[in-house]
Amino acid sequence: MTTRDKARLGRMAADLLLGLDARTRDDALASIAAALREGRARVAGANREDLAEAKRSGLAAPLLKRLFFDEAKIEAAVEGIEALRGLHDPVGRILSARRLDTGLELAQVSCPIGLVAMIFESRPDALVQMACLAAKSGNAVILKGGREAAHTNAALCEIIAAAGRAAGFPQDWLSPLESREDVAELLELDEYVDLIVPRGSKDFVAHIKEHSRIPVMGHSDGVCHVYLHEDAEAGMAAALAVDSKAQYPAACNAAEVLLVHPSFARASLAAVVAALEAAGVRLDLDPRSAAALGREAGKTDEDWSVEYLDLRMAVKLVDSLDEAIRHINRYGSRHTDAIVTSSRDAAEEFMDRVDSASVYWNASTRFADGYRYGLGAEVGISTGKLHARGPVGLEGLCTYKWKLRGSGQLVADYASGAKRFHHEELDLGD
Amino acid sequence: MTTRDKARLGRMAADLLLGLDARTRDDALASIAAALREGRARVAGANREDLAEAKRSGLAAPLLKRLFFDEAKIEAAVEGIEALRGLHDPVGRILSARRLDTGLELAQVSCPIGLVAMIFESRPDALVQMACLAAKSGNAVILKGGREAAHTNAALCEIIAAAGRAAGFPQDWLSPLESREDVAELLELDEYVDLIVPRGSKDFVAHIKEHSRIPVMGHSDGVCHVYLHEDAEAGMAAALAVDSKAQYPAACNAAEVLLVHPSFARASLAAVVAALEAAGVRLDLDPRSAAALGREAGKTDEDWSVEYLDLRMAVKLVDSLDEAIRHINRYGSRHTDAIVTSSRDAAEEFMDRVDSASVYWNASTRFADGYRYGLGAEVGISTGKLHARGPVGLEGLCTYKWKLRGSGQLVADYASGAKRFHHEELDLGD
Repeated sequence: MTTRDKARLGRMAADLLLGLDARTRDDALASIAAALREGRARVAGANREDLAEAKRSGLAAPLLKRLFFDEAKIEAAVEGIEALRGLHDPVGRILSARRLDTGLELAQVSCPIGLVAMIFESRPDALVQMACLAAKSGNAVILKGGREAAHTNAALCEIIAAAGRAAGFPQDWLSPLESREDVAELLELDEYVDLIVPRGSKDFVAHIKEHSRIPVMGHSDGVCHVYLHEDAEAGMAAALAVDSKAQYPAACNAAEVLLVHPSFARASLAAVVAALEAAGVRLDLDPRSAAALGREAGKTDEDWSVEYLDLRMAVKLVDSLDEAIRHINRYGSRHTDAIVTSSRDAAEEFMDRVDSASVYWNASTRFADGYRYGLGAEVGISTGKLHARGPVGLEGLCTYKWKLRGSGQLVADYASGAKRFHHEELDLGD
Repeated sequence: MTTRDKARLGRMAADLLLGLDARTRDDALASIAAALREGRARVAGANREDLAEAKRSGLAAPLLKRLFFDEAKIEAAVEGIEALRGLHDPVGRILSARRLDTGLELAQVSCPIGLVAMIFESRPDALVQMACLAAKSGNAVILKGGREAAHTNAALCEIIAAAGRAAGFPQDWLSPLESREDVAELLELDEYVDLIVPRGSKDFVAHIKEHSRIPVMGHSDGVCHVYLHEDAEAGMAAALAVDSKAQYPAACNAAEVLLVHPSFARASLAAVVAALEAAGVRLDLDPRSAAALGREAGKTDEDWSVEYLDLRMAVKLVDSLDEAIRHINRYGSRHTDAIVTSSRDAAEEFMDRVDSASVYWNASTRFADGYRYGLGAEVGISTGKLHARGPVGLEGLCTYKWKLRGSGQLVADYASGAKRFHHEELDLGD
């Protein structure tokens, strides 16, 4: 089947999914979980084939580890499906309701987006998770995983698609794509595909965005900051700087730049730096922070949009809260930024004026994550500003529609003045 | 100033607007209203210049009428500003709030999008409205109006920008663009511009979407349907068909296609057709509806994605609710579609399965409008599915950010198991 056919049929399946209720969607998840348990030997076998080929072709050890998907990992994925099944239905939520006039009631109701393409690098467990997020939210889905996992992905897609169908999902609710050429073709099919969710490196996401008119929900850079205000408590400042940088330096929400007020620097920067270095962090000091520490400057350029993704951090003195905010808005990536301060006013000003998806007061930037936020399931992290921003849960796979229930009302009667609108907010009652 | 400079400075102004409170935004609206009242003779004079030039160049009468902006129309625009000022603040609304752990509270809070470009054809009152929608929602704005209104627009932009500044808005919160070349350049500036809101014809909106990577909020086609189910009450069916088509046929929410169940057609299609024809509607009958009426078919092709925008309507017999829904999802434009039926079940199935922004039971498609929906102010109508769908109020110019207020919490403590999340929903209390 061509990619265009998959998209066309996926679009039709999306329309049919709109007619299914929450119970059918949850039944589909139960059916998928059962089928994966039953088919675990087959999936693990396919994964061994992929691993063998990957070893022969010299795939690096960390990538081999991500590719590995044995029966224990399949069981963990199945438990994830069962947890997802227990979450509230994201479809049919009444977001607002208003009586326009007697017998004329408007409701804004959440509903699936339609056909979502999810494109990601290796990690077979991501395939299971994304297929199930789509099923829970009533979206049809086109999946493209990494080519190293081709056998594993093929087995998973076949099992998951059939299990969905067995629970009443339409024939083409899930289609796999195989090659990069397929993806290139898919990016053109904005007449069928409503949304692309890419998961992978920043370059990978940027590539998808660059080459498609279809809306993309994904994250680009993570240039995150920790700003130590003049009145920051020194112990807390050191601990938050270390956690924000070193707890998992390769994550997009790890901090890259430490901004420091001169008053704080005079009293306590040495202690913060000592804590960071004790955690293995190599520091790129700007001339002023170096001078404050009596050291050599390591960073003399003005390129502050640095994303190390490593145990390395830039340090810069800024003269005021205002300068810190302006620096972040100018050089940051509008992802996640934190202030450490004892002042509520300074914190609120920081959180209002920093134009980032997540803005924190006295907390580690590493909290920017769907599970930590309590979203139940994470679809991804978005650095776009429209539709969904920051960590995105299931509601990121939903849109809404306006349902108007009347009793024969005509606009002509309101235009002529024969009738008048009585807009009245209604209780959501859910 | 180049377009790039305007966009760059607009971006900086957007960051500064984040630091202003609701009172300053409302003060800016009051200041703009007062300045327009004071400057009305100047604006009306500029408009007379535009009108004189337009007459010399032979602009068509309906366009001349749209261009006309005298002191009475300025006063009406000022009253619109005062009404907008009275609306609830769209910024700072708490959309959700959750305690992640003791002393660690997360809030999802609405905030301005940033720099919005609004591009529209003629109509000076649209410029006033769009500038004020931006001011109310705390967005910086770049405005491009029709070239026929160049003098009027220049006077309005100067007065409005200065009045905003007098109330504390940043220097470059509003910039005008003058030429089509400026717009072409603007469409490239996705590093500065967060959103484009075009208002105008479908071709105009499609052109903008085609030529920019910046998200666009606007409407494309309005191929809207009225479906008369087998049990529709005949009098209501006729009245709704007439209102949906003829109350204002050039609107995007006017119905273009009447779908009819054969049982209804046998008993009552003649009466509905008579009502439509009495309202001046010319009907394109498909062969089966023509046969039911004992007439000649006027529509024998299969091109059902017709948008007449005129007193003309296609009529088609469909054998079931399911066929009606499939027809609409295949040929419609996902804008607004209505069913006329006495059956709640049929209506709910229709509203669930029709994949359109607005889905109606026993109401005219012409209700799809921000004022009729009670949104207070209308930013536009969106046929996109992401961010905002259907009629869009002020919240369409807002996004949200996540504010996390902690007391020194580290992710390492949760990763190690020393601490555990206790996700607990909080009252929104607004």
